[in-house]
Amino acid sequence: MRNVAILGSTGSIGTQTLDVVARYPDRFRVVALAAGTRVADAIEQAKRFSVPLVSCAREADVATLRAALPAGTRIAFGSAGLLAVAAESDADVVVAATDGAVAFDAVFAAVERGIRIAVANKELIVAAGELFVAAAKASGAEIVPVDSEHSALFQCLVGEPIERVASLILTASGGPFWTWEREAIERAAVADALRHPTWQMGTKNTVDSASMMNKGLEVIEASRLFGVPAEKIDVLVHRTSVAHGFVVFTDGNVKAQLAPPDMRLPIGYALAYPDRLPDREAIDAFAALGAAVDAERAELAFARPDTERFPCLKLAYDALRRGGTVPAALSAANEIAVHAFVEGKIRFGAIPEVVGAALAGTPDEPLSLASVHAADARARDLARSAVEARLAAPAK
Amino acid sequence: MRNVAILGSTGSIGTQTLDVVARYPDRFRVVALAAGTRVADAIEQAKRFSVPLVSCAREADVATLRAALPAGTRIAFGSAGLLAVAAESDADVVVAATDGAVAFDAVFAAVERGIRIAVANKELIVAAGELFVAAAKASGAEIVPVDSEHSALFQCLVGEPIERVASLILTASGGPFWTWEREAIERAAVADALRHPTWQMGTKNTVDSASMMNKGLEVIEASRLFGVPAEKIDVLVHRTSVAHGFVVFTDGNVKAQLAPPDMRLPIGYALAYPDRLPDREAIDAFAALGAAVDAERAELAFARPDTERFPCLKLAYDALRRGGTVPAALSAANEIAVHAFVEGKIRFGAIPEVVGAALAGTPDEPLSLASVHAADARARDLARSAVEARLAAPAK
Repeated sequence: MRNVAILGSTGSIGTQTLDVVARYPDRFRVVALAAGTRVADAIEQAKRFSVPLVSCAREADVATLRAALPAGTRIAFGSAGLLAVAAESDADVVVAATDGAVAFDAVFAAVERGIRIAVANKELIVAAGELFVAAAKASGAEIVPVDSEHSALFQCLVGEPIERVASLILTASGGPFWTWEREAIERAAVADALRHPTWQMGTKNTVDSASMMNKGLEVIEASRLFGVPAEKIDVLVHRTSVAHGFVVFTDGNVKAQLAPPDMRLPIGYALAYPDRLPDREAIDAFAALGAAVDAERAELAFARPDTERFPCLKLAYDALRRGGTVPAALSAANEIAVHAFVEGKIRFGAIPEVVGAALAGTPDEPLSLASVHAADARARDLARSAVEARLAAPAK
Repeated sequence: MRNVAILGSTGSIGTQTLDVVARYPDRFRVVALAAGTRVADAIEQAKRFSVPLVSCAREADVATLRAALPAGTRIAFGSAGLLAVAAESDADVVVAATDGAVAFDAVFAAVERGIRIAVANKELIVAAGELFVAAAKASGAEIVPVDSEHSALFQCLVGEPIERVASLILTASGGPFWTWEREAIERAAVADALRHPTWQMGTKNTVDSASMMNKGLEVIEASRLFGVPAEKIDVLVHRTSVAHGFVVFTDGNVKAQLAPPDMRLPIGYALAYPDRLPDREAIDAFAALGAAVDAERAELAFARPDTERFPCLKLAYDALRRGGTVPAALSAANEIAVHAFVEGKIRFGAIPEVVGAALAGTPDEPLSLASVHAADARARDLARSAVEARLAAPAK
């Protein structure tokens, strides 16, 4: 029986983690949940899984939780609540599934105690990956990625020392704009950006996928998680999202990982690793994909992405090459830009412009948890200013 | 420095093994060669690699070898020669690259001494795989496959216990007749059968590839090498031979191995395992394949094989299900049938007929080295009779 704590339990990854736990009740027990402001969802989850420790974002919601949950349930909130869920819940594995930087300190506390992190919090790895990996090495904590691409690379690297790796390749669906002209992409509507061809994800991730910033962030993530430099990480577009990653070894042999586009697979892998859960349904889903191949003959095709039409990808490589707090700034500025786009404040093509402006205002400086938080705040300010400038001026 | 002995040094795998050794002279040293009747080739190889022990098939060629090679070179012949090369040459790894059953005893002797076998001798695994694997387990000898498909599966299984495997998938190029009608296949010319789309191989293997018997034998091989039953082994046709094998795990995740179609890669892997040789050329060859994908969009497509047009594949599954000495009979009868086809004695469509006749005459009996040799001889007789019957009668 493995104890699971979830940071971000009401989000997309959080709810799918609970789906996995529900399916294997003899293997996993939920010992703590941290939700944001969706308190009703959190109450339902806590009841269903008899969770002894529940946290929410705002102090104002504590009374609601206490009234709804059984006596004896420990209730917490805010950053102290996140910390309690991650590091004081007797968890064997913490699922880090919040967006942004809110849970950084909580996750670091868990890592320092040697607790495994199933990491879906992209920004955590992008902004503070080097510190995070170093802390895990020091404590012996395992980091198992939940992102499908990094789970793919992680699986392909099982039993293979990193010295024998020539390059890592992340696949990309290409998103909804893969075949669009640059001009059309620049002016894409929010509804278009939210129409992802293969994956069911949260809004932020779906927009990032449309701009390919998602892939750019993943390049940085891969570099941090596996200790491989930018020039050894490639991206290939593969429309059907069946193959999620490739490892090219020094001898020219290549391993790929393939799976149906269902996040419950990498989540289940991160929870159960090194074991694998028995999942007849997923096996059959892959076989069905195989059968579908006959008709189309292009199910497993790949192409190189075009950074002219998808400049976010180039921005991410630039940030990775600069290092320090620049990846943190990239990630933070992108959050602001995507939010502004979803709210109708800027056009789609302004996302890389806003991020680029924030990166231009970010100095090269050494990395620490403090400098990451400062860079994050500064990049958000710079990005907000860039958004405001576009609001004031007529569209170019 | 690893000592390498080669059984079948002048054949396709043998010469490519020497290419690999020549490229990494600081890692490998050839300590013994066993050639067949191509004595001039053997002499050239022995001189080039300063090989201290050289064997040939016939006693009549011993004098030629002795005259051509430096004094002090140990010369041997026949089955004693094979035995000396495999088990008395101080080899760390024996490359088993002869066709048929000729080297069985020599390979077993090496296995019993705990020497690693880089196994390319398909018939060995098909006919006596259970005994071979059991002997290796007993002595601790490693068996590393050289066939590209089994090397693929072996690589995908690194670090993954076999209990977590749901199925193994072998890819097949489909051979030259993949798009042909059944009637045309039946009457295919030898020259057509030898026109393989992607791989450079010996004659026997190329014809087996055209009939898909090659893939059938590989299904049996995979079952023996990895200890997985027939119902967990699938075949998918994949025209470009870039992906060589897939492992489907119990949790629905799948790993594939991909590489340029160049036998030197799996040979190098089998020699160097668990290390990987540095091979910039092979890495670039894979990247070039990736680039080629853009245009075609079907580079990595897969389809199910049709056992109506390729009955050899079904015969192999049947033999695997019956077990005992039936796989040995399949392999032996197929050798006779392919030989008869190449000599123009039977049409291509008669290959499965001849093999089927031999299997019909093969009893179910327990497996031992003795029963394997007997079944091999009996199946050859049955196959020869079936060939003769077709010579006497006008073509159907």
